[in-house]
Amino acid sequence: MVIVMTPQATGEDVEAIIALVGTAGGEAFVSRGVSRTIIGLVGDVAQFSALNLGGMRGVADVMRVSTPYKLVSRENHPDRTTITVGGVPIGPDTVTLIAGPCAVETPQQTLEAAEMAKAAGATLLRGGAYKPRTSPYAFQGLGEAGLRILAEVREATGLPVVTEVVDAHDVPLVAGYADMLQVGTRNAQNFALLQAVGAAGRPVLLKRGMNATIKEWLMAAEYIAQRGNLDIVLCERGIRTFETATRNTLDVSAVPVAQRLSHLPVIVDPSHSGGRRDLVLPLSRAAIAAGADGVIVDVHPHPEQALCDGPQALVDGDLRELAQVMRQFPPLLGRTAATAPLSAV
Amino acid sequence: MVIVMTPQATGEDVEAIIALVGTAGGEAFVSRGVSRTIIGLVGDVAQFSALNLGGMRGVADVMRVSTPYKLVSRENHPDRTTITVGGVPIGPDTVTLIAGPCAVETPQQTLEAAEMAKAAGATLLRGGAYKPRTSPYAFQGLGEAGLRILAEVREATGLPVVTEVVDAHDVPLVAGYADMLQVGTRNAQNFALLQAVGAAGRPVLLKRGMNATIKEWLMAAEYIAQRGNLDIVLCERGIRTFETATRNTLDVSAVPVAQRLSHLPVIVDPSHSGGRRDLVLPLSRAAIAAGADGVIVDVHPHPEQALCDGPQALVDGDLRELAQVMRQFPPLLGRTAATAPLSAV
Amino acid sequence: MVIVMTPQATGEDVEAIIALVGTAGGEAFVSRGVSRTIIGLVGDVAQFSALNLGGMRGVADVMRVSTPYKLVSRENHPDRTTITVGGVPIGPDTVTLIAGPCAVETPQQTLEAAEMAKAAGATLLRGGAYKPRTSPYAFQGLGEAGLRILAEVREATGLPVVTEVVDAHDVPLVAGYADMLQVGTRNAQNFALLQAVGAAGRPVLLKRGMNATIKEWLMAAEYIAQRGNLDIVLCERGIRTFETATRNTLDVSAVPVAQRLSHLPVIVDPSHSGGRRDLVLPLSRAAIAAGADGVIVDVHPHPEQALCDGPQALVDGDLRELAQVMRQFPPLLGRTAATAPLSAV
Amino acid sequence: MVIVMTPQATGEDVEAIIALVGTAGGEAFVSRGVSRTIIGLVGDVAQFSALNLGGMRGVADVMRVSTPYKLVSRENHPDRTTITVGGVPIGPDTVTLIAGPCAVETPQQTLEAAEMAKAAGATLLRGGAYKPRTSPYAFQGLGEAGLRILAEVREATGLPVVTEVVDAHDVPLVAGYADMLQVGTRNAQNFALLQAVGAAGRPVLLKRGMNATIKEWLMAAEYIAQRGNLDIVLCERGIRTFETATRNTLDVSAVPVAQRLSHLPVIVDPSHSGGRRDLVLPLSRAAIAAGADGVIVDVHPHPEQALCDGPQALVDGDLRELAQVMRQFPPLLGRTAATAPLSAV
Repeated sequence: MVIVMTPQATGEDVEAIIALVGTAGGEAFVSRGVSRTIIGLVGDVAQFSALNLGGMRGVADVMRVSTPYKLVSRENHPDRTTITVGGVPIGPDTVTLIAGPCAVETPQQTLEAAEMAKAAGATLLRGGAYKPRTSPYAFQGLGEAGLRILAEVREATGLPVVTEVVDAHDVPLVAGYADMLQVGTRNAQNFALLQAVGAAGRPVLLKRGMNATIKEWLMAAEYIAQRGNLDIVLCERGIRTFETATRNTLDVSAVPVAQRLSHLPVIVDPSHSGGRRDLVLPLSRAAIAAGADGVIVDVHPHPEQALCDGPQALVDGDLRELAQVMRQFPPLLGRTAATAPLSAV
Repeated sequence: MVIVMTPQATGEDVEAIIALVGTAGGEAFVSRGVSRTIIGLVGDVAQFSALNLGGMRGVADVMRVSTPYKLVSRENHPDRTTITVGGVPIGPDTVTLIAGPCAVETPQQTLEAAEMAKAAGATLLRGGAYKPRTSPYAFQGLGEAGLRILAEVREATGLPVVTEVVDAHDVPLVAGYADMLQVGTRNAQNFALLQAVGAAGRPVLLKRGMNATIKEWLMAAEYIAQRGNLDIVLCERGIRTFETATRNTLDVSAVPVAQRLSHLPVIVDPSHSGGRRDLVLPLSRAAIAAGADGVIVDVHPHPEQALCDGPQALVDGDLRELAQVMRQFPPLLGRTAATAPLSAV
Repeated sequence: MVIVMTPQATGEDVEAIIALVGTAGGEAFVSRGVSRTIIGLVGDVAQFSALNLGGMRGVADVMRVSTPYKLVSRENHPDRTTITVGGVPIGPDTVTLIAGPCAVETPQQTLEAAEMAKAAGATLLRGGAYKPRTSPYAFQGLGEAGLRILAEVREATGLPVVTEVVDAHDVPLVAGYADMLQVGTRNAQNFALLQAVGAAGRPVLLKRGMNATIKEWLMAAEYIAQRGNLDIVLCERGIRTFETATRNTLDVSAVPVAQRLSHLPVIVDPSHSGGRRDLVLPLSRAAIAAGADGVIVDVHPHPEQALCDGPQALVDGDLRELAQVMRQFPPLLGRTAATAPLSAV
Repeated sequence: MVIVMTPQATGEDVEAIIALVGTAGGEAFVSRGVSRTIIGLVGDVAQFSALNLGGMRGVADVMRVSTPYKLVSRENHPDRTTITVGGVPIGPDTVTLIAGPCAVETPQQTLEAAEMAKAAGATLLRGGAYKPRTSPYAFQGLGEAGLRILAEVREATGLPVVTEVVDAHDVPLVAGYADMLQVGTRNAQNFALLQAVGAAGRPVLLKRGMNATIKEWLMAAEYIAQRGNLDIVLCERGIRTFETATRNTLDVSAVPVAQRLSHLPVIVDPSHSGGRRDLVLPLSRAAIAAGADGVIVDVHPHPEQALCDGPQALVDGDLRELAQVMRQFPPLLGRTAATAPLSAV
């Protein structure tokens, strides 16, 4: 930690800080400049944070120089991690395709979507039974009936299931059906939910909050990790900016930045960031080229009838093109497309 | 609803839309321009939304022209509403000051802060027992013990209590102690929580999500209203922008804009938006001058020891200045400072 | 300046920095922490900036702790400055109203607008002869003919003239007619223009770039000041955010923040930030209440015929209400409404 | 154009609009809904814009449904365009690498950087002689001396030169040396400059304003096109968002979106968007994979001594990796790396 004093700060102000830091078991190194003084603190940052140093007289700024996330940071864990979901790897050696319908609507629609996903090279099935919707009048998902459909389709196709949970108290129920729990962008700072999935014993797909800095996204992951669960996959899904041509702005730079700061895998959702079918393939290619460990896309057998986000769902020829991307791009990045475990095929 | 066709759309594309709208009981009015056709829809918008018109061939854009929120909209409810919390009004005739500590820490600290609040003209006490914090290593609040402290301080001071709830399943517990339930910025799209507070039979203080458009904020209020609770006060607390000089950017324009779109009262939190003590008074004045129905501010007897957001808490002389603002500004806006009910004094 | 080393940085990396800083005539103070080392630099920051310290091996971050703007900073100039434009003060003791048409269209329209402005309490006349427009097909202003109209209206009304200049090479021409040169939001980093107005010997109204941080805004002012002109008034006019209900988001916090960082006066443009007539009065009140040294608003005798920004121009009863604001609000802030010099009345 | 009336609008309000539109030679089609009326306008949109319809009584919203840019739009020019710069193509069949130093510092540094660029596969040389810098105290470029160096290095290497112009009145001078004129992000709405480069008879590289929507970016291109110059290459270079981990947020979606809206080529600057060397290669790959028609990157023989943006310049092994990207990625997109014309090799 570094404390920058105001030009008006007195020697007494500096002494008061040195004394206070000492009470917290720390040491303070003072650099007196021409116009102001800087104090470097050595010791336990968590202790220093509790001191409210920013409130002391003569303090202009308190700058933290170490990372506030510990368990998910790459600083003490230099090797990047591979997470396994129902036998399918997500990590630095592979590119994993997760696909499926935005919302589970019927057994037939879900099965068809899963078969489309599989044909395109997907080895994990996505599908929402609980849908957080901006309007209370929009379709909110089938709930547990949707989870049962997902389990049946897993049985039929061998694809492990990724599905969203939106309420801390639903976590045990959803974890009973799902292979991976998804926390959505609107819940990226729902700390009760993060702690609950942290205790659930299932891998977690953590979407970035649409207004979260990369640092806040990693802090959200830290909430999960702190409850004992390090099987976390980070998912960039677009941030909110002034641009309205796309639903959100895909922050493709977040892929290499987050991979450098954290050892966790980072994937990309090009469907929800763009909100437009015609952007899904270009953004999928861009994500993989930027080094993403996977992509998660919406597919639907009949997008024009979809109850949720039809305009962005891939269909028909899109999927053949996606399959081609999954064959051609991973090798250029020194990776392979992630395959399903033998038992699941 | 208005459908804008692409320049390439054919007569058949237009006919298909007319037919589809007809199946939903609506009527379509076609305006054929030189370069493109526009279709105006008349009928039940909710029905039209389910049609996925944006996915039809030849459609360039689907524009909604009516408001998606019904219960909180001012369109069908032209008079602005006054909400009452423990006898204290929040509405168009008054300016209500809510003040108290960011977090409840001890009985003594809470009582002192409440007395400071009262001296400054506050008629409602704020204080957090459940604190959503970016870091899992930061102070998370006292929980039910904090609620008990708040109830005791209400007893001692007569100030009704506003306190945050962060998990849908805590709502009954918190509602057992609080006069008004607060939903924080990070939970502004936690729909499970919104529905739970909608069913709790207590007035709700709904903070704007730091990344929420005004429309999304009103949609969040609609979630609460839809469960039967229209005692909702909207609270602008700053949005996330590129500017880093302040923690968030107070969107003071949101006050008149939201008041024009919705009949609900709108107040402002100048403490959390700015994150700096020296901005609280200027922003409080600005909020009242812009027409806010109240302000909610942090006070603390010893900010330098605060466990949460000390740098923004008002103290000492700040409160005398705030009391002066509460005396001088409301009359200029044709209002009075809201007073406590007689029984509570 | 503070240099934060990576945890992996070696003693040699640190020595290399100390040596390099020495060559620039500086001194380096080293604080060795448990996990990383921090180096405080003392000396000439401009010299250090040229060293490209961020590119050295082992460097994680270089943090500047002094302000990069010198002439406009309040650090070495604690008293706030009053600028005088044609005898009218803009500064800490007054609230100055600048009003007039967005664009000069005809002598009659400009004169009528000026009389409306004056009746509302304005002591300076705004009006654009050169209009930067997003579309090349929109009205671009009357050019020098517009300047002549402004000069005639000044003659008739006694109101000194504020008008925009958009090209460095037009500065002498515009300065020949105007009492104050305005630099618009789209030119806030047009450094050639900033330097030209810095050399023009006329007070400057510097609008904040709609994407400029407060620091960048002050750096733009520093460009003007560096050419010898310190008669600069800063004007907050809204920043670009995700919110689309208003044209831009008025950053009212920028008023006290900029006043704390700089000794220059700060005014607010509530017309262009909101882009809506119904917001101009609430935002004018908010600006004055937040401590603005003035406001600049659009008025037009016939907004429905305006060639530029008619939807935001005040008219009729709005102006009586504005006059009331100018009577009632300044005294609450310990100020008076700025009056015209005797000779001009 | 579509006009949406308020629910309170009367029949007379509607009639007034029909009459006004008629005076402008247009036709109005009225759709009367249950709660409000919508009017579709057919005719000349530019005429309608001048009517200030938004200011009419009873009007809630005026929605433009055709594109305001005509010459650069793809609507009337469905084939994508290839621009040629000194014999080097930029367009849909190729991926063009433009590389060179951020700023021209010395003949030796510029020549070395050009040779590095060429070895990496670049066929155009970038280099700034006029540098728009946030601080007036930072290196501002060598001016015409820098242009002479660029011309000498073109002679020596055969690489055509792309260089920035920052003032309308410098355009003839810069055009005398450069093969392509660059308009930088800070000048993206400097309309005097846009018009001057539109008249200069040289291809133009138009960077997106860091706060410009895609539509505004295309409007800026329309300013150039309107002066008779359609040899414009659009360059995405990152937009300003709340994220501070990168200097700006590369909006990779803007590549396919702009290519769909406009027939002009779109390239990407991964150096300035990220501001970090370690992001340049991932973002270059992402840009090409998203369909960019080229990339423009900073290289420097000695980044640690660079006078401008050293931290983002590629050096040494980076360039071998970039050369590999240029060999491997274009074929996957059905393109070839753009080569220099024979005479230049």
